[in-house]
Amino acid sequence: MPPKNKSPLPPEFELIARYLAPLAAGVPAALGLKDDAAILSLHPDRELVATADALIAGVHFFADDPPDLIARKALRVNLSDLAAKGATPIGYLMCWALPESIDTNFIEAFTEGLRADQAEFGIAMLGGDTTATSGPLTIAITALGEVPRGRAMLRGAARPGDEIYLSGTLGDGALGLSVARGGLPGLSGSERAFLLQRYRVPQPRVQLGMALVGIARAGIDVSDGLAADLQHICETSGVGARLERSRLPLSPAAAAAVQADTGLWETVLAGGDDYELIVTAPPERGAQIKAAARAAKTPIARIGRIEPGAIVAITDEAGTPVSLARGGYRHF
Amino acid sequence: MPPKNKSPLPPEFELIARYLAPLAAGVPAALGLKDDAAILSLHPDRELVATADALIAGVHFFADDPPDLIARKALRVNLSDLAAKGATPIGYLMCWALPESIDTNFIEAFTEGLRADQAEFGIAMLGGDTTATSGPLTIAITALGEVPRGRAMLRGAARPGDEIYLSGTLGDGALGLSVARGGLPGLSGSERAFLLQRYRVPQPRVQLGMALVGIARAGIDVSDGLAADLQHICETSGVGARLERSRLPLSPAAAAAVQADTGLWETVLAGGDDYELIVTAPPERGAQIKAAARAAKTPIARIGRIEPGAIVAITDEAGTPVSLARGGYRHF
Repeated sequence: MPPKNKSPLPPEFELIARYLAPLAAGVPAALGLKDDAAILSLHPDRELVATADALIAGVHFFADDPPDLIARKALRVNLSDLAAKGATPIGYLMCWALPESIDTNFIEAFTEGLRADQAEFGIAMLGGDTTATSGPLTIAITALGEVPRGRAMLRGAARPGDEIYLSGTLGDGALGLSVARGGLPGLSGSERAFLLQRYRVPQPRVQLGMALVGIARAGIDVSDGLAADLQHICETSGVGARLERSRLPLSPAAAAAVQADTGLWETVLAGGDDYELIVTAPPERGAQIKAAARAAKTPIARIGRIEPGAIVAITDEAGTPVSLARGGYRHF
Repeated sequence: MPPKNKSPLPPEFELIARYLAPLAAGVPAALGLKDDAAILSLHPDRELVATADALIAGVHFFADDPPDLIARKALRVNLSDLAAKGATPIGYLMCWALPESIDTNFIEAFTEGLRADQAEFGIAMLGGDTTATSGPLTIAITALGEVPRGRAMLRGAARPGDEIYLSGTLGDGALGLSVARGGLPGLSGSERAFLLQRYRVPQPRVQLGMALVGIARAGIDVSDGLAADLQHICETSGVGARLERSRLPLSPAAAAAVQADTGLWETVLAGGDDYELIVTAPPERGAQIKAAARAAKTPIARIGRIEPGAIVAITDEAGTPVSLARGGYRHF
């Protein structure tokens, strides 16, 4: 965080006009951020998907993380929730509460991060609220998207016999958090940098989610940890699941980490902050799933199967059930 | 705020299941708050209206205010923004960050406040995010509503010759804040109680806003203060305005306050926190405006006129322009 008052903030309205209004430029729905509300038309064949996630300094990121990366993470964790439903992102409303230590350099870098990700994901700022706080920087974003009517991937849609797929690689985010805290000193510098970047800037699987609409049944993004989020699917769908740990796709850096310390499997399986997609689909859709992943240029791996019952069983290489000390990230 | 850990919070998922999921019960769009997203269908003839406002302890309310009233205010300031566009409220997503001092008694009372206002305004909780914070209680709400396509009341729609109308009474909220801070000791106990209640529980003019769709042109709610919010309409519409202070509707308590101390006119005109509606409409719509107000059981007063130019002129009883030391509430 920059020193206090290094470059003091302009008055609220000027701050909005200078730094936020450009993020809504050219988007009629946002009404130039001048109207306290956004007004959107949806195509009659589409449904609205709305999701909200807040990030707080000291809880979800470090106050001295690069401001543009804080902004992008705040946006991306919300885009990841849209992706898990198969939604096409439209835009977002951002409420942020600024501590006194925030200066214009921070605001410039932060809004530059928003601008970059808006361009990458084809979205705009639609509204929000800027306030001061005596507490830590707090960013609450509501993201809006749209999905063909009745086709969203829901948590409760998994059926026994479905294959379970996971996008990308698992555990990088939680291991990256360890790196940010000074852990994993045995890894190489480039491995540590890779994991840290994955923690700071998750990759929401927006294209993949959109491509899977009508193909996959259930969908969720891995934010609480693979074990906990798969449990969410199973509880909501009234099913169980069986995974083989050896099938889980790991990055070279994560593989090196668990090879050096098998205790880190706990971090990989239950650490969270992955923002990869778990989806389920009947076996006969396997080829379509793979084609969708290729079209979205996103790796996907089959990691297990939905079963009758209510138990999420993860087995290791020897077929022995893996027990996890914790079910996933909890705030309290 | 209750003493720390008097009645500690349950784990996050249990807190959501016990206190928040009931606020989404029976509303398919909310997916039982189990899906990290809400999925809504809009009528093809309707547009979505989305607005977001955050409230922070120590900034927008006092940490020891009754929890149910904090909740209702957080919801109502957002409903007021929907009302200003003429939108019919649908529901809301709430991100809240809880300091350690919050216990289950607080949560129970807070969610009871949400429940009461959901019933009053016919809305449901659609989603959100519950986190811990080292800072003050922070509540960021995104409210969603719908309005007939192309009929929303916009800030930029005022035209010279339009009459300016104001709902309810002005200044109660800002004077109520003075009462909360121990001010206005000269008022009677019931006057002080009335003003305090108006500050704590604003009345969003939802029915009035809906009734004015297709009748009024421009609309805004008074949150920054009459002078500042009328300025917003004028800047966005490229017009000026002329108001007579004597036409402004005051409650008996506010009238008593300004009679005892004419300096309080500043608070009435620029204090904000009114959450009344300012709307403009051509003179020939006067009868329709009054009929809409009657139908919505909401008082409305004609307070001035939109003029060419760019100046917002407020004149006192002698026709002398009133100058305001500040343009409206600013966070920094």
